[in-house]
Amino acid sequence: MMRNWEDYVRKVTPYVPGEQPEGTDIIKLNTNENPYPPAPGVQERLKWLSADSFRLYPEPDCKTLVRAIAKHYGLESAQVFTGVGSDDVLAMIFLTFFNSEKPVFFPDITYSFYDVWAEMLRIPYETKALDQDFLIRKEDYYEENGGVIFPNPNAPTGILMELSEIEDILLHNQDVIVVIDEAYIDFGGTSALPLIEKYENLLVVQTFSKSRSMAGMRIGYAMGNEKLIRFLNDVKYSFNSYTMNRAALLLGVEAVQDGAYFEECCRKIINTRERTKSELSRLGFAFGDSKSNFIFATHKSIPAEEIFEALKKEKIYVRHFKKPRIENYLRISIGTDSEMEKLIHCLERIL
Amino acid sequence: MMRNWEDYVRKVTPYVPGEQPEGTDIIKLNTNENPYPPAPGVQERLKWLSADSFRLYPEPDCKTLVRAIAKHYGLESAQVFTGVGSDDVLAMIFLTFFNSEKPVFFPDITYSFYDVWAEMLRIPYETKALDQDFLIRKEDYYEENGGVIFPNPNAPTGILMELSEIEDILLHNQDVIVVIDEAYIDFGGTSALPLIEKYENLLVVQTFSKSRSMAGMRIGYAMGNEKLIRFLNDVKYSFNSYTMNRAALLLGVEAVQDGAYFEECCRKIINTRERTKSELSRLGFAFGDSKSNFIFATHKSIPAEEIFEALKKEKIYVRHFKKPRIENYLRISIGTDSEMEKLIHCLERIL
Repeated sequence: MMRNWEDYVRKVTPYVPGEQPEGTDIIKLNTNENPYPPAPGVQERLKWLSADSFRLYPEPDCKTLVRAIAKHYGLESAQVFTGVGSDDVLAMIFLTFFNSEKPVFFPDITYSFYDVWAEMLRIPYETKALDQDFLIRKEDYYEENGGVIFPNPNAPTGILMELSEIEDILLHNQDVIVVIDEAYIDFGGTSALPLIEKYENLLVVQTFSKSRSMAGMRIGYAMGNEKLIRFLNDVKYSFNSYTMNRAALLLGVEAVQDGAYFEECCRKIINTRERTKSELSRLGFAFGDSKSNFIFATHKSIPAEEIFEALKKEKIYVRHFKKPRIENYLRISIGTDSEMEKLIHCLERIL
Repeated sequence: MMRNWEDYVRKVTPYVPGEQPEGTDIIKLNTNENPYPPAPGVQERLKWLSADSFRLYPEPDCKTLVRAIAKHYGLESAQVFTGVGSDDVLAMIFLTFFNSEKPVFFPDITYSFYDVWAEMLRIPYETKALDQDFLIRKEDYYEENGGVIFPNPNAPTGILMELSEIEDILLHNQDVIVVIDEAYIDFGGTSALPLIEKYENLLVVQTFSKSRSMAGMRIGYAMGNEKLIRFLNDVKYSFNSYTMNRAALLLGVEAVQDGAYFEECCRKIINTRERTKSELSRLGFAFGDSKSNFIFATHKSIPAEEIFEALKKEKIYVRHFKKPRIENYLRISIGTDSEMEKLIHCLERIL
């Protein structure tokens, strides 16, 4: 018997995260993780963590971590919001700010969680097609809307938008919240962060999951003017008062404090990315000029899905999206030099 | 200038968590934390945690922890959902299942997050007054509604409802989701868990924050039939794919596996609670028969707020709610024997 309760279930089509295969002999280039470990201070601090303190609730306002992030970027604590990965931060932003009857705008090819959040929260939205080179056309975002969100660099294309273009979008959107999702900004982009002083409706979202090698600890953050952060915190406190656990708060501080290690890791990944681009070109792949820790590539003759399956057989995992316009592309995360060499050798055999 | 974007902000009155005062010389009896450390295995496992693994995302399905919880309760993994504390689990339940136009029912005196979630998510609700002895009247929940939720034992009263009464409520509510919030069940109550085999619409929610001394790690869980858990996971994957970090997943397994330590801690807290009840009686307090790790007490002559402030001056923190019907009550968490002796001595001086 079908009971009535099923009529009132929020039925959704959830976001599907990349596979998380297990094993030490695999090369995992499918979820844009960092191939290098977190800053040495993280391991050091971990050694001194006492389980006894776990009996107590963590700071509800995450103030130790918020303060460390604010200090790193030269902000006030009141300008920073933290959450359980940038997905949690973005979900809170959708819930807090996207309550208009007008549609929220984002690109047709972009982070595939945006439409999931909108559908789940019943927020109207409209996607704007990237041009034939997979670039965002800023003019598409000048119409009246209920909010604007896009990643910069965009995902899964890896292509960066210039700050002057972002400012053009902001100039045309001062009555709605504009969110720049900068998960990949540290791999060669210029952050829109300085613009938060000029535009009170701008939120810049970043994460510890990519450039800070902390995907496993779930730390994301938003930066914006105090009023936005206060509204965001009010909704957060209406959802879960204690989101980030004691380990994430303490270890996150260590990850953000080590500037030298951070820069070295990013530089290594950028170098590996540029070398990988040459190799992929040589092998007949085409791709945009990625400024992220992945390359979004299509091959001139072999279908993406075939390459995807062939790599998987060799225990090399990349990401393939079965979606319109991009089904013939592979998103390849940047690993270590040695991992990328193995990938190239493997591709040479396959092609 | 007030910009239009403010019109579309979700304006809420957030839940206010208990104070988190810092310092080692305080006695903290205000947020129902466990006075004993987590199971020894947690500290042991912590020693072997490697920060290197943090560069990788955690399991999106939390399967290691889900399996351990399922095993502990003799369930299948498909019957268990985990989240970032039971608040996260409960918020997900509200979002997933409470989508009717009919009001959700819960007591007028209860966990003060229920009305916050309902308001935030714009879910209609109706509170049902506890009787003069602060008992839930089961008949109040027999009318047509959009869902039923209450804690057992109830918070902040600590009073337990018999399983037969819970079953009466279930018998009258087979077309809506019924949630029994068992945050405090391990301190002398009988769980409604066996009823999930009989009632497909029942969810039993528990937490590691109280009886397992892991408030600081944020681990909560719901148990129910596979269909309910699947709907809940779909919404979770539409909100945040990776909620629980690697530390919480690994250390949570250790906390749930040590049955002997768990039982010893609960027994100690129950003994301390019963001793504290005698002392409080002697000092002129009245209270219901708490089966939780706190006592909800009122004094025959001194107003609760006065006692609250006097204790605070002595660095003893208890909880006082400025709310109708309960403003003359204090919620006193059960600490160690020595902490409770200090409380009693302090009360003797104050009264």
